[in-house]
Amino acid sequence: MGRLSKPLVEVLIALAAVIGIGFALLQWFLVSKIKLSEQPAKGGKSKTDDGVRDDDEEGPEGFEAVRKCSEIQNAITVADQSEWATEARLSSLGKPDEQNKLPYSPFVVFLIISNVIVPTGATSFLITEYKYLGVFMLVFAIMIFLFLGSVRSYSTHSQPCHYNKNQMCKSSLANAVFSTLAFLLGALTSVLSGFLGMKIATFANARTTLEARKGVGKAFSAAFRSGAVMGFLLASSALLVLYITINLFKIYYGDDWEGLYESITGYGLGGSSVALFGRVGGGIYTKAADVGADLVGKVERNIPEDDPRNPAVIADNVGDNVGDIAGMGSDLFGSYAESSCAALFMGAISSFGQTHNFSAMSYPLLISSMGIIVCLLTTLFATDFFEIKDVKQIEPALKWQLIISTVLMTGGIAIVSFVALPPKFTLYDFGNQKIVKNWHLFFCVSVGLWAGLIIGYSTEYFTSNTYKPVQAVADSCRTGAATNVIFGLALGYKSVIIPIFAIIVAIFVSFSLASMYGVAVAALGMLSTIATGLAIDAYGPISDNAGGIAEMAGMSHSIRKRTDALDAAGNTTAAIGKGFAIGSAALVSLSLYGAFVSRSGIDTVNVLTPKVIIGLVAGAMLPYWFSAMTMRSVGSAALKMVEEVRRQFNTIPGLMEGTTQPDYATCVKISTDASLREMIPPGALVMLTPLITGIFFGVETLSGVLAGALVSGVQVAISASNTGGAWDNAKKYIEAGVSDHAKSLGPKGSDAHKAAVIGDTVGDPLKDTSGPSLNILIKLMAVESLVLAPFFAAHGGLLFKWFS
Amino acid sequence: MGRLSKPLVEVLIALAAVIGIGFALLQWFLVSKIKLSEQPAKGGKSKTDDGVRDDDEEGPEGFEAVRKCSEIQNAITVADQSEWATEARLSSLGKPDEQNKLPYSPFVVFLIISNVIVPTGATSFLITEYKYLGVFMLVFAIMIFLFLGSVRSYSTHSQPCHYNKNQMCKSSLANAVFSTLAFLLGALTSVLSGFLGMKIATFANARTTLEARKGVGKAFSAAFRSGAVMGFLLASSALLVLYITINLFKIYYGDDWEGLYESITGYGLGGSSVALFGRVGGGIYTKAADVGADLVGKVERNIPEDDPRNPAVIADNVGDNVGDIAGMGSDLFGSYAESSCAALFMGAISSFGQTHNFSAMSYPLLISSMGIIVCLLTTLFATDFFEIKDVKQIEPALKWQLIISTVLMTGGIAIVSFVALPPKFTLYDFGNQKIVKNWHLFFCVSVGLWAGLIIGYSTEYFTSNTYKPVQAVADSCRTGAATNVIFGLALGYKSVIIPIFAIIVAIFVSFSLASMYGVAVAALGMLSTIATGLAIDAYGPISDNAGGIAEMAGMSHSIRKRTDALDAAGNTTAAIGKGFAIGSAALVSLSLYGAFVSRSGIDTVNVLTPKVIIGLVAGAMLPYWFSAMTMRSVGSAALKMVEEVRRQFNTIPGLMEGTTQPDYATCVKISTDASLREMIPPGALVMLTPLITGIFFGVETLSGVLAGALVSGVQVAISASNTGGAWDNAKKYIEAGVSDHAKSLGPKGSDAHKAAVIGDTVGDPLKDTSGPSLNILIKLMAVESLVLAPFFAAHGGLLFKWFS
Repeated sequence: MGRLSKPLVEVLIALAAVIGIGFALLQWFLVSKIKLSEQPAKGGKSKTDDGVRDDDEEGPEGFEAVRKCSEIQNAITVADQSEWATEARLSSLGKPDEQNKLPYSPFVVFLIISNVIVPTGATSFLITEYKYLGVFMLVFAIMIFLFLGSVRSYSTHSQPCHYNKNQMCKSSLANAVFSTLAFLLGALTSVLSGFLGMKIATFANARTTLEARKGVGKAFSAAFRSGAVMGFLLASSALLVLYITINLFKIYYGDDWEGLYESITGYGLGGSSVALFGRVGGGIYTKAADVGADLVGKVERNIPEDDPRNPAVIADNVGDNVGDIAGMGSDLFGSYAESSCAALFMGAISSFGQTHNFSAMSYPLLISSMGIIVCLLTTLFATDFFEIKDVKQIEPALKWQLIISTVLMTGGIAIVSFVALPPKFTLYDFGNQKIVKNWHLFFCVSVGLWAGLIIGYSTEYFTSNTYKPVQAVADSCRTGAATNVIFGLALGYKSVIIPIFAIIVAIFVSFSLASMYGVAVAALGMLSTIATGLAIDAYGPISDNAGGIAEMAGMSHSIRKRTDALDAAGNTTAAIGKGFAIGSAALVSLSLYGAFVSRSGIDTVNVLTPKVIIGLVAGAMLPYWFSAMTMRSVGSAALKMVEEVRRQFNTIPGLMEGTTQPDYATCVKISTDASLREMIPPGALVMLTPLITGIFFGVETLSGVLAGALVSGVQVAISASNTGGAWDNAKKYIEAGVSDHAKSLGPKGSDAHKAAVIGDTVGDPLKDTSGPSLNILIKLMAVESLVLAPFFAAHGGLLFKWFS
Repeated sequence: MGRLSKPLVEVLIALAAVIGIGFALLQWFLVSKIKLSEQPAKGGKSKTDDGVRDDDEEGPEGFEAVRKCSEIQNAITVADQSEWATEARLSSLGKPDEQNKLPYSPFVVFLIISNVIVPTGATSFLITEYKYLGVFMLVFAIMIFLFLGSVRSYSTHSQPCHYNKNQMCKSSLANAVFSTLAFLLGALTSVLSGFLGMKIATFANARTTLEARKGVGKAFSAAFRSGAVMGFLLASSALLVLYITINLFKIYYGDDWEGLYESITGYGLGGSSVALFGRVGGGIYTKAADVGADLVGKVERNIPEDDPRNPAVIADNVGDNVGDIAGMGSDLFGSYAESSCAALFMGAISSFGQTHNFSAMSYPLLISSMGIIVCLLTTLFATDFFEIKDVKQIEPALKWQLIISTVLMTGGIAIVSFVALPPKFTLYDFGNQKIVKNWHLFFCVSVGLWAGLIIGYSTEYFTSNTYKPVQAVADSCRTGAATNVIFGLALGYKSVIIPIFAIIVAIFVSFSLASMYGVAVAALGMLSTIATGLAIDAYGPISDNAGGIAEMAGMSHSIRKRTDALDAAGNTTAAIGKGFAIGSAALVSLSLYGAFVSRSGIDTVNVLTPKVIIGLVAGAMLPYWFSAMTMRSVGSAALKMVEEVRRQFNTIPGLMEGTTQPDYATCVKISTDASLREMIPPGALVMLTPLITGIFFGVETLSGVLAGALVSGVQVAISASNTGGAWDNAKKYIEAGVSDHAKSLGPKGSDAHKAAVIGDTVGDPLKDTSGPSLNILIKLMAVESLVLAPFFAAHGGLLFKWFS
């Protein structure tokens, strides 16, 4: 009772991962059945009563749109070549112009703007980014190897284990080799997660638009299924790669679980390193283009968003793909990998590991496996058990996804906890062994799971324009941009309160019951429904882009209303996703922090020692330093973009009239150059801080820095994300004008709306560059410290050694 | 050697305080010799070559201005009545209007706007505020008494001392009584500091303007001497009251120094409580009016700042007096009182106290005494040793004040350290006694002093428009308000780095050398030149208002150029003052925190315990919660103000033409009501958090909360203040147009200037409400915890007691 046999555990984990991947492929198959060359629904009008009245004229979807859609396949093939070849070919296709080289044909521009195809710019940018990243990864991998190897002067001899002195552990050179390998594997998986996410999202856009002609239910299914592809693929492959890595490493490590799971921590480090550069580089890229495009296009020239006349529009859409979608995938993969690594490491130095209880040791992986199954069931509620018949059902359907998955998962956690764990065991607790019961761990995982739900809902409350906070921000636009910014900042600050209390409760319960292992599994609990969370999250940009396609193709009003409704719900859920990402980052980094402290051999982190307190103060400063860098990078790049866009509007004749194409390539180049150049300083700050602190100031100061960065970074991240989200939705609230209040502020172009646009623009770098990158800052510094802990403990603190 | 006799110490401290007060009175006398009824300088033109070319027309100062000035004395007398009586009288003086009751005569409006007289509104608002405060203080005093008395059930029996078990200490009831008394005394002194500052500042404005007719040197002297009145009066009276209180308490306490200095900590709590409500209430008042006045007047109606046609202009100027001047006085008094209390308390439980070494025990007071003498000498450099002959000399003269005082004080610290301290002694170090030498303390105080200078200069660099950072922000206005806000926020974040490193070095050196006593005297070191710091700080608003008077009285261009030059230098120094306030707050609250931990009987604050880590996370959130409250309060009140000002402009005929007076009283009422109502929630948050945490969660969690609030609050405070300061000066940079770059952005009314005004408006609540209040938040929570520590230690942590 309370223990599963080793083969059964092995099978269960592998099975869950494979089922997850299979389910993702099934969803992909279902989406791909929507043929882009398909004829429009008979009559061109929806027969379903889905809350959208077909009171408007026959749209052109029967003619123009479908002709365009039939060309999409070709365009994708064309766009799938290397950038310059494509450009050359497209130039020859497009109407040549004397004054202005056209890199894309007008139709390809349309497709790129509609996010139907990934612009060659995105792929090529991503490839360039990954090249830079590859060099960095290689250098960093060598460094990890050298640092960890030096702990015992590259000795190949086994040594007594650190925690279980009676046993022999593999050499520190082995730790260096395998940590480096795990690091590279994590980085690779992260790159894949991001890239796949991007491909899937763009795959789904046009299909969702086409389905919207048949009614909102079909469109919702298409968008949601596509999101699910990404969610399940990521959750399952993350689990599978980790599982395979552990099994491969075990061939060498054998019974030395302590060494095995120590080196596995490199997997988390690799994942988060890629995520950092993805988030920062992508964030700068997309927001420089977005801010630049909006400031001139929307504010000065009064042309709509995503208008092909805007020279920055291609750069903006390239950015959406690399920043939001690839970034989010890498980020959540990083969180997942890190919390698994932290839990596994803490488990390995607890009684599980020392008594080689495989079933209990695999508890974190079994929780994730259960999560995949639970999310699979949950997805069926949205796509199969119920059908969306009215636009008003969309948002509830998405929210129910979260509730259903959380409720089901609570049961799932109970099952795993009682089946996989012995009734009583001990966990490592900073030098002591703490006696814990299996139902304690049930509470730890559950409290993380439910805290995630609360954080998600609180984020929604503060960023959705169906509630008072955002409406108050919108209302403050009456008196101009200044009050809008003041109210927005205040809202962001206020939105920190509930998530922090949720995090505090999760920390207190899990820490009290099961020490740092408890915190790690609480983080895993929050991430256990990651497949559903990501599905909902990816659904957002897909719907957004589907709306864009409908708009650009000039489809009928009813179809646009449907995609708008999908989009509105997507905004809310994207905010929830960000809340999850931050909340889990807090728990993850605390558990990594605990693991780091355990591994570096200090038992207490006493605030009232000079070494720790200066670390704490400095650590709390880092999120500000980091944000200053990223915000300024976006600002500077946006300034350049604005100058360029203005220049083009002023000097290219016929641009405003739509008779000439703008020079998109220069804008793409500005964003590319800015992001590649500007991602290095903030990246270096995050990567070098633990290194320099550890080497020169030692593990005590480093433990202060990590704690300071954690407690301060969470607040900055939450407030930045929510402030930005609120401004975005306040603007949309005024634009949509659904209530009398909203109408009194609008319409588009009113003074209040202009003020709202300013707020939205300020919020762009906050919510899409600084905020999300801070998640990674706090996690990455912790996991880097954890991986390099033996090195710091052995050779660190040089400065104090010199002076004493 | 190394010890002064008790009588000598007593005499030295008293002498320094009396000399300081005498010097303040002398400066006052010198300023008051400038007669407001004085005739203009012969010919009405300056004969001095002070860099201001008299190339413009003869101003009206020979006629109009002096007629007005001769009326000032009467106006002051008139205004010095109770509000409603005055209003009634003034209404009868002013031209009655059918649609609009005129509470002030046009001339009195002019005087109030010019800050020549304190508007009756300010005095009456302050009296109302103090009434509220009085009730709160009384309730809180009773609470302190009850809580501290309950520690040993109101027993009147003596008991063995906490730290020196061989000695008998007075009863805890005595501690309750004397702590309460000290609390009330501190509150009273703080009220006086604020009130006096306000009176002095307004006393000096018109006199500075009149002196400006004679040349920039005379005007500078008048403004600077007036500032010095405030600086010396505050520094000296703070020392004197503390000194007298100690001596009075000693009559009862006798040899029980531990008990004596424990109860003295109440003095710091009283001082900071008043400062909190002063800063928050005053900050909301002034910024609601300021933002409201600017948004309609400057942005919509295009009328200048401080235009009497603006209905909110009186409220704005009332606010300047109660917010900036009274608030700053109370704030710095609070810091000074608290750091003295922390140092004295830590001293009392060290070998000084236990061996009754009076000279060493008085070290903190002697440092402050030396500070007064050093500042006195420094002042002479500005007013007597050198004379300002050119406008370009103003800023260097002010900056040299800081450098001279710092250099001289370093010598002063050396003298005090070697004369007052024994060569070797022990200091309490969380359960141990640490051996310390007298030159160690010299380094502790000096490092604080110099860190203050660095923080001041860094603040200047980031907020003065003579340097690149603010110029870059101004430049970003080219592309509109959004980039201005983005760049401003980024600048604020970045400006945190250097001050934090300065604070870290100060903490590390002082903590390593002399534990928490070292940190406390480092804070005192930073505050030791407070007289000079405050003189420079108060100089700012005085010059600002002098410029306003010159503007309003329509004085000649050359005079306005002089007052503008004075004002420009004042902006920089005000920023430096804010930097000092925040830097010292960080050190003060750390030392109070150390004292709290020592007094509550815990030896370590281990981050890696559930109780501490949840406190740390929650504490780091408090500055955000607090800022959300204060920013929103300002925003809401400003919205109301805007509506009212718009209403008046739209409905009162002749208002824009200047033929009718606006209804100032309604705007004053909006600000008054808002600030009185809205200061309660943030005040309650700060005051109740330590109480609730201590009672329900106990001292461990409370120690986490304090550390979290400290490390996070410092960053928020610095970035908020500097962001606001930078926006303010970016706007002024464009307005002044002194360089080609600045001219390309201007002039007033250009798009870039409009964008800059939006930034400035957003910055108002950040730099004048949230930012400065956060200083007090971190100090106040620490000192409150320190005072109530015995109660929390005895009866706190109920929640954990119930559950375990």
